[in-house]
Amino acid sequence: LYGIPRERKLTALTRYTPWGTTIDALGRHLLIELHECDRSALDDLDLVRDTLVEAAYRLGSTILDVSTHKFDPVGVTAIVMISESHLSVHTWPEHGYAAMDIFTCSKTMQPADVVGFLSVEVNRGILPMVRAGRPG
Amino acid sequence: LYGIPRERKLTALTRYTPWGTTIDALGRHLLIELHECDRSALDDLDLVRDTLVEAAYRLGSTILDVSTHKFDPVGVTAIVMISESHLSVHTWPEHGYAAMDIFTCSKTMQPADVVGFLSVEVNRGILPMVRAGRPG
Repeated sequence: LYGIPRERKLTALTRYTPWGTTIDALGRHLLIELHECDRSALDDLDLVRDTLVEAAYRLGSTILDVSTHKFDPVGVTAIVMISESHLSVHTWPEHGYAAMDIFTCSKTMQPADVVGFLSVEVNRGILPMVRAGRPG
Repeated sequence: LYGIPRERKLTALTRYTPWGTTIDALGRHLLIELHECDRSALDDLDLVRDTLVEAAYRLGSTILDVSTHKFDPVGVTAIVMISESHLSVHTWPEHGYAAMDIFTCSKTMQPADVVGFLSVEVNRGILPMVRAGRPG
């Protein structure tokens, strides 16, 4: 459907110490808060899905599955499963808000590289708040 | 497939201030690191998927879609889309490690309630490291 999957490369755990606590995790997991978005854009399932799929391509990931849902009265969810983990977006047009996450286990993939693209597509160029859930 | 979806309730943004930075987000998003897991369990797609689906039921969520992938040579991904956002698990049997996240936007849903269940099912009762990516 979206090209031939490359099988996932074996990667290594990374140790990090947020708040003085040692955590062993794998990959990079960004949590992205998009505020003041265009409300009609956040309710446009095709736009939201295509933006997330394009972000996955720009990361160089291999897409395995795309799942979406349109809520009544408003709001959409899109989840893109990739060989290297996943991307998701949940939108609340009534708040002009979207919550995204990008989780990648490839050492060469930099999820932060697509944040600018996402902000242009769904957030009128306003840069989102981004936090590293798993800093990788 | 998994029951009649209730449509998502409208909820409100929550303001919190990790590390002195103000963030407005919606819902609770837990990042869960499962270490020292049984390696064969982590490579068992049915077990991993069923565990995640059961966790979604225990949270009282409405399941909209379930997506899975088995990697070669080892590893599985399962993602459960729920009306209230999503649950995901990515496993690395070669490390005895699984990375999960549970994101819920219901004010009454407590993702932390299923952490004990998950630890028994895939982690031999060892409690995982849990962090709140979005504290809700």
